[in-house]
Amino acid sequence: MKDDVRGDARQYVALPEPFSLRRGGLLRGARVACETWGELNAERSNAVLLFTGLSPTAHAASSALDPTHGWWEEMIGPERPIDTRRFFVICVNSLGSCFGSTGPTSIDPATGHPYRLSFPELAVEDIASAGYEAVRGFGIDTLHAVVGPSLGGMVVLAFAALHPGKTRHLVSISGTAAASPFALALRSLQREAITRDPDWKNGDYSPSEPPRNGMRLARKLGTITYRSAQEWSQRFGRAPVDAHYRTGAPFGPVFAVEGYLEAQAERFLRSFDANAYLYLSRAMDRFDLAEHGVNVAEVLGQAGISSALVIGVESDLLFPLAEQQALANAFNLAGVATQFVPLPSIEGHDAFLVDIPRFGAALGGFLGST
Amino acid sequence: MKDDVRGDARQYVALPEPFSLRRGGLLRGARVACETWGELNAERSNAVLLFTGLSPTAHAASSALDPTHGWWEEMIGPERPIDTRRFFVICVNSLGSCFGSTGPTSIDPATGHPYRLSFPELAVEDIASAGYEAVRGFGIDTLHAVVGPSLGGMVVLAFAALHPGKTRHLVSISGTAAASPFALALRSLQREAITRDPDWKNGDYSPSEPPRNGMRLARKLGTITYRSAQEWSQRFGRAPVDAHYRTGAPFGPVFAVEGYLEAQAERFLRSFDANAYLYLSRAMDRFDLAEHGVNVAEVLGQAGISSALVIGVESDLLFPLAEQQALANAFNLAGVATQFVPLPSIEGHDAFLVDIPRFGAALGGFLGST
Repeated sequence: MKDDVRGDARQYVALPEPFSLRRGGLLRGARVACETWGELNAERSNAVLLFTGLSPTAHAASSALDPTHGWWEEMIGPERPIDTRRFFVICVNSLGSCFGSTGPTSIDPATGHPYRLSFPELAVEDIASAGYEAVRGFGIDTLHAVVGPSLGGMVVLAFAALHPGKTRHLVSISGTAAASPFALALRSLQREAITRDPDWKNGDYSPSEPPRNGMRLARKLGTITYRSAQEWSQRFGRAPVDAHYRTGAPFGPVFAVEGYLEAQAERFLRSFDANAYLYLSRAMDRFDLAEHGVNVAEVLGQAGISSALVIGVESDLLFPLAEQQALANAFNLAGVATQFVPLPSIEGHDAFLVDIPRFGAALGGFLGST
Repeated sequence: MKDDVRGDARQYVALPEPFSLRRGGLLRGARVACETWGELNAERSNAVLLFTGLSPTAHAASSALDPTHGWWEEMIGPERPIDTRRFFVICVNSLGSCFGSTGPTSIDPATGHPYRLSFPELAVEDIASAGYEAVRGFGIDTLHAVVGPSLGGMVVLAFAALHPGKTRHLVSISGTAAASPFALALRSLQREAITRDPDWKNGDYSPSEPPRNGMRLARKLGTITYRSAQEWSQRFGRAPVDAHYRTGAPFGPVFAVEGYLEAQAERFLRSFDANAYLYLSRAMDRFDLAEHGVNVAEVLGQAGISSALVIGVESDLLFPLAEQQALANAFNLAGVATQFVPLPSIEGHDAFLVDIPRFGAALGGFLGST
């Protein structure tokens, strides 16, 4: 399983023609990229649909077609928390993203040119519905479970609201029914860093000249809000920056943490599209589950879910624990058998990527009980 | 006391010639701007020196010469927590700032041009020493107390280390003996937003064409980290933005909190110099009180201080309460009579500007007991 042998395990599912978006606009010729692990059983009843955070691909774990490590490698596989001896797992690249699913970088069949800002406004609900279409593309009507962390933790709630009865179980990890103004402020600043970069050109940058400075700042701010002060005090302290990151430029990096941010930003710059980032970020801001009914509990009560697992992290700044607590309370109020697992991980919002022992135990235990 | 009648109450104290800076370099013809309230007594023993946070001027309170409200208006005056019936209060504009004290916008007498990036590297210790020179300019040898919030809460510690025996009492508010990597990361990102703005021009921008976008992003990030998620949830929730801030630009403001950030940034853009900001921000990063001795407690034990008040705020993200707790512990270990006041204010790092009842009670009580 060498990381330098990158294959491509993506499969593509065409979306219904046209595919109407929640806030107006429609897509023609749109598709969703996904990867799968395990086998669909004869009853087509063992499927687990996994939605991602803002930036990952559908490559959640390695497979024969793509042996590189996935973003949730330790979580998916035989005898792993999402056990592929039992479950058929589908991970979808979010609609609006840039890793195979239709998004702002895709060609608009009406013009022959990339959508860029002519892509219609994206909603979290559209990501959920596109994911469900992928499921139906595999001949599956009802899921065993939907699972999602971060943005994915919002998408699973949209899925429940829009497709009642189509999943028996639901797992929302470090998500929220509606973002707080603190999270709105942080994301608006990330978007502004990009849109004020002269290289953004109102979305019309060339792929070889993207708004690098804006993307760099946006990703660094993201990285700061995805982790925690406590983790960084242990990990970096006030150690000096590696020589590699010493630019000698005025006010350039001095401390180790500055080099870490730079490395994160560089990696992101090489992979993510600025317009896709803007669309997904705005979609997260505008999502409000309560719009689908009288209130969150009422919406969840109509979703036909048997049991729910809600996980949150004490050190999460961006999706604070109180929001997962409120979500779990709403599930309970809706009469859904609910497990609320607050975790003491110190890795903040990103803990689901790092603290595999704690998250694996919670997720594996829940799925094992279903 | 109308806000539109702005006078100028600043006095200027020349610094010794030359004035050597801690990290090398020296200044000629340098000065410090300050304002005062109350009367110096015959023994010259009732002076309280106030250092500011990163961005304020020396105008901490109104006076006959400048009747506009100051940044700590409710804290300074007769029968107020810093009671001017008893104390002679001096507030200094930090060396390196841009409101009358010598800084990067000042003319370098050696060239006849503004220093800009030829200004020597600034240290928190330099701000402390320049403040002490201002005090000596008033014929004062020993202070009754030094007081400082935020950056000022670091400067008072540098003052104690550099000028032992020159203050009897010390108040450090929402300060730290050395910033955590989380704070370093946030400040490095604010600086990068400015230095990557093409209008920064390596510090050679004209005053009429400053790096507005970078300063805007830096201040918005500052504003986010100066307050708290809890306060904003109560204050803004998910309310829509005021019509005034609806630009109609792609990905422009939608929520009320985005308009608030914009208003804060606009105000800052009109007043603060980008290079001064960079110098002060870097100085805060590099400050480490332990450099002055074996460790923080040993340094504080040599400062000849009778009593200390350390205040911190539970919701402070940037200067977390654990750092003020550690500082208070070090004072105690050093044998200084220490009061540690952790406050439950929800306004985060900026609480000292907002939660006047709590801060006033702590500060007034402490000074009253000295």
